[in-house]
Amino acid sequence: MTLEQNDRLILLTNDDGMYAAGLRALTEVMEEFGKVVVVSTQESMSGMSMALTVKTPLRVKLLEETDRRRVYTCNGTPTDSIKLAVNQLLERKPDWVVAGINHGANASVSVLYSGTMAATIEGCLYGIDSVGFSLSDFSPTADFSVCREVIRTVMRKLTEMRLPEGICLNVNIPSIPENEIKGLLVCRQSKGNWKEEFEKRKDPMGRTYYWLTGFFHNHEPEATDTDEWALANGYVSIVPVSVDMTAHSYLKTLKEGFNT
Amino acid sequence: MTLEQNDRLILLTNDDGMYAAGLRALTEVMEEFGKVVVVSTQESMSGMSMALTVKTPLRVKLLEETDRRRVYTCNGTPTDSIKLAVNQLLERKPDWVVAGINHGANASVSVLYSGTMAATIEGCLYGIDSVGFSLSDFSPTADFSVCREVIRTVMRKLTEMRLPEGICLNVNIPSIPENEIKGLLVCRQSKGNWKEEFEKRKDPMGRTYYWLTGFFHNHEPEATDTDEWALANGYVSIVPVSVDMTAHSYLKTLKEGFNT
Repeated sequence: MTLEQNDRLILLTNDDGMYAAGLRALTEVMEEFGKVVVVSTQESMSGMSMALTVKTPLRVKLLEETDRRRVYTCNGTPTDSIKLAVNQLLERKPDWVVAGINHGANASVSVLYSGTMAATIEGCLYGIDSVGFSLSDFSPTADFSVCREVIRTVMRKLTEMRLPEGICLNVNIPSIPENEIKGLLVCRQSKGNWKEEFEKRKDPMGRTYYWLTGFFHNHEPEATDTDEWALANGYVSIVPVSVDMTAHSYLKTLKEGFNT
Repeated sequence: MTLEQNDRLILLTNDDGMYAAGLRALTEVMEEFGKVVVVSTQESMSGMSMALTVKTPLRVKLLEETDRRRVYTCNGTPTDSIKLAVNQLLERKPDWVVAGINHGANASVSVLYSGTMAATIEGCLYGIDSVGFSLSDFSPTADFSVCREVIRTVMRKLTEMRLPEGICLNVNIPSIPENEIKGLLVCRQSKGNWKEEFEKRKDPMGRTYYWLTGFFHNHEPEATDTDEWALANGYVSIVPVSVDMTAHSYLKTLKEGFNT
């Protein structure tokens, strides 16, 4: 891959591993926008959040190189992948970081656990316009082609505008036929949490172990300005995500509470 | 441990593992406030963010039980520890989740990577008043006794007031003699990121590998209302952290951008 001065350089990653269909679909669409460098995780890293690999060394493998793309895989997390790419593997700082397409929605509080959104947030921390895409379909045969036109629309918008410092995008696509998608909805993260999260079992030795499981509980099913509502009603949800987690609206009250 | 109806039930965890001096110091102080259940991680889980264990089963071991405390350890992450405790190990929903005392500061963007703050955020997602404590000292001989009075002050405040839904506290304590601490400062998360994050080496076979390293770069060293400033100037920083990552201030502009 040769990078000309006016080529757009796009860094891709995901959290479903190097063979994920969602990553292949994303790579194909993003090649329409520039030169693509993929740094995928070797294995599925779903639910790894912004975990960093600090206790073991990282290794990187170049898998493929064509005129339009270069594909690596690394043994770390999605956040490691972005850090490695920006610091060691890329010719220069990329213009965009794009993560996904995740197998399953990352709406509401899933933004906190998602490896896909972690990679997106990591790109944003480097001052790069960053977007994470997820398809609301966990089935192994999920059809990612429904996402192509949505991705094109969002990224075309990013060719016209830059995101503010410290803000990236969390885009979730409903799992419905493309012609039934009603449109794109800019919205906020829905309030919710996970419930009944473990299955308790006995191993053959009689010792207890637990599997993580559970279901999502939407705290505000009536609200119509949330990502959960958008997805449930046939819209693509676009949530601007802030890397600043300060609860600014509560600063004053808390200051008064502590008399500072 | 017997739990009476008016006992305060406090869930503790950390990300430095079951033998961490910071966890022992925190446990001792928190016993002044109620009955304590500790669910620590077996190993150090520093930088694990809100990672979930989804591919392997979790196991829990009861290590110690006295009249005032019950101590478990689990083979998962800090977030797993809180989920396991709330769903499987506790008699009832705890009144507080308290994490730490972390070995090293979790100011600025470290809130995104920290296992200690991940556990705190997880508690908050369950609707529990949650606080994470960190000492700004990475040395193996760090003296956590400096934190005791700070922890007492913060937790006494929480006996008088409840935190709003979706907001928890990130408390960082400077590594200076206790009598030099100037006070507690409610402040915001400083803008910053990490730089030069890898050391590239060759293994004995001549193959390249990378170690995560690097240093923190403060983007706003002049600002006096940030956690970084507080710590550098002898104050304890208290940042209210929101589990809602929506960039609310940018919603309107983004909506106009997408014409929705």
